[in-house]
Amino acid sequence: MTDNIGILHPGEMGVSVAVSAMTSGHNVYWASEGRSPQTYQRAQTHALVDLGSLENLCRSCSIIISVCPPHAAEEVARSVLAFSFKGLYADVNAISPQRARRIGEAMSDAGVSFVDGGIIGGPAWRAGETWLYLAGSGAEQVADCFSAGLLQTEVIGEVIGKASALKMCYAAYTKGTTALLGAVLGAAEGLEVRGELERQWSRDDPGFAEEAQQRVRMVTAKAWRFAGEMEEIAATFAAAGIPAGFHEAAANLYRRLSGFKGRVTRPELLEVLNALISDAGKDKE
Amino acid sequence: MTDNIGILHPGEMGVSVAVSAMTSGHNVYWASEGRSPQTYQRAQTHALVDLGSLENLCRSCSIIISVCPPHAAEEVARSVLAFSFKGLYADVNAISPQRARRIGEAMSDAGVSFVDGGIIGGPAWRAGETWLYLAGSGAEQVADCFSAGLLQTEVIGEVIGKASALKMCYAAYTKGTTALLGAVLGAAEGLEVRGELERQWSRDDPGFAEEAQQRVRMVTAKAWRFAGEMEEIAATFAAAGIPAGFHEAAANLYRRLSGFKGRVTRPELLEVLNALISDAGKDKE
Repeated sequence: MTDNIGILHPGEMGVSVAVSAMTSGHNVYWASEGRSPQTYQRAQTHALVDLGSLENLCRSCSIIISVCPPHAAEEVARSVLAFSFKGLYADVNAISPQRARRIGEAMSDAGVSFVDGGIIGGPAWRAGETWLYLAGSGAEQVADCFSAGLLQTEVIGEVIGKASALKMCYAAYTKGTTALLGAVLGAAEGLEVRGELERQWSRDDPGFAEEAQQRVRMVTAKAWRFAGEMEEIAATFAAAGIPAGFHEAAANLYRRLSGFKGRVTRPELLEVLNALISDAGKDKE
Repeated sequence: MTDNIGILHPGEMGVSVAVSAMTSGHNVYWASEGRSPQTYQRAQTHALVDLGSLENLCRSCSIIISVCPPHAAEEVARSVLAFSFKGLYADVNAISPQRARRIGEAMSDAGVSFVDGGIIGGPAWRAGETWLYLAGSGAEQVADCFSAGLLQTEVIGEVIGKASALKMCYAAYTKGTTALLGAVLGAAEGLEVRGELERQWSRDDPGFAEEAQQRVRMVTAKAWRFAGEMEEIAATFAAAGIPAGFHEAAANLYRRLSGFKGRVTRPELLEVLNALISDAGKDKE
């Protein structure tokens, strides 16, 4: 069965989700109104069909998939409800389970079928590297959108929030340790012991110091949108009875790197560490 | 040259430091007054000479090395000063550089030569596995106490606080990631997605889920004294202009595990995770 699927919005992840649905035999649409030239270019390159306005997209599609930064998830959901969409709505964003439940309740109240999702991995250009976890009674229907398998899917039950919880816990460690490495390297630089620290790391594991430096330099381009995800994780942990401080600190650090958004070349380590060290904090000593 | 070295106190780490000095040809003393039966037994087993009181130890030794939990470091230093010790005092504890500087200033004011140290690794029973970093003008003299090399030494300059800073930054990652793994597994358990998380981890790296479980179960016996070390790291980071939240959260988590102190058998994972999840936090939702 061929479905009409709307993707909000074709960012780097979203366009790969769109292509995965297209290669699975579906018609995939987007709405260019108000989107950036970069998004327009990306959607053109991958032959997504532009319906112009969100209103047209809501009218033409039976399934809408929301792929956006966490802070925008509720706004995107509200805008779809404003156009009286009546199909199936899947939120696959990095949001807390409580936010997913809130969106789900608003959808149910409006007669929209809601599926909670969470994506683990980068944009899905190679099979077996990116997983879309799905929860909710319509989860199988969303999984069917990607049957050709570029994007792997797995349904993990009917309880809304479970897919989001899994995504939060997974990212808590990967993005949490990258932030922690940044904090440690920043502190070591500020305290003038970075050389000694990297030497000791190399005694334990010859590749570790270099890997740590690369992780911290590589994350800079995406740091601006990781801050919101860290705040979602902090809220998720707090609601589960676990201290939120790890990810509140991680959000703070990623915000300090937000100036690297859009930078084409990877910055030198020292530039990153200097951005991580807050002079305000140092003054307090 | 044979020195008379006092060890305050022969805990599990301290007794290995003492033995390393003995095998390097020095006379090593301790003071049993007020210590636990376990410490007495440990010192006896390794043939440390008991001088009974701290007063006797301060009178008989030219070098005193403080090896104790971070919260006790300043009290140990004060007690030594109270007996008018006039030799060389090395603090090798897991304390912030600012606390090391504070102890160093008190020592200098009293005419005591001060060396700042930090130990990386477990008790030094095998060569090449445990490093004592040293900073201060008397650092070489402390390094000479361990010339036989069970405990490896490295002098990293004259600036008091540098060895402590290195220890803090190193432990920030090792003990920080163990705490983070506990937080993630605790949250996943509470949110009923632990099985799915461990399955995804295994897709990324077949050994990781098992390793994470073991790290969290193994840390329980020592968690009671890690809380103080995490607070020292938080203070170190704050003074360096880096968010303290990671290690404040880690201190909180390690405190939740303090009930496992002295437990002989390693607890099951579920018992650990239930201890990590605070009902108070959950009630807030």
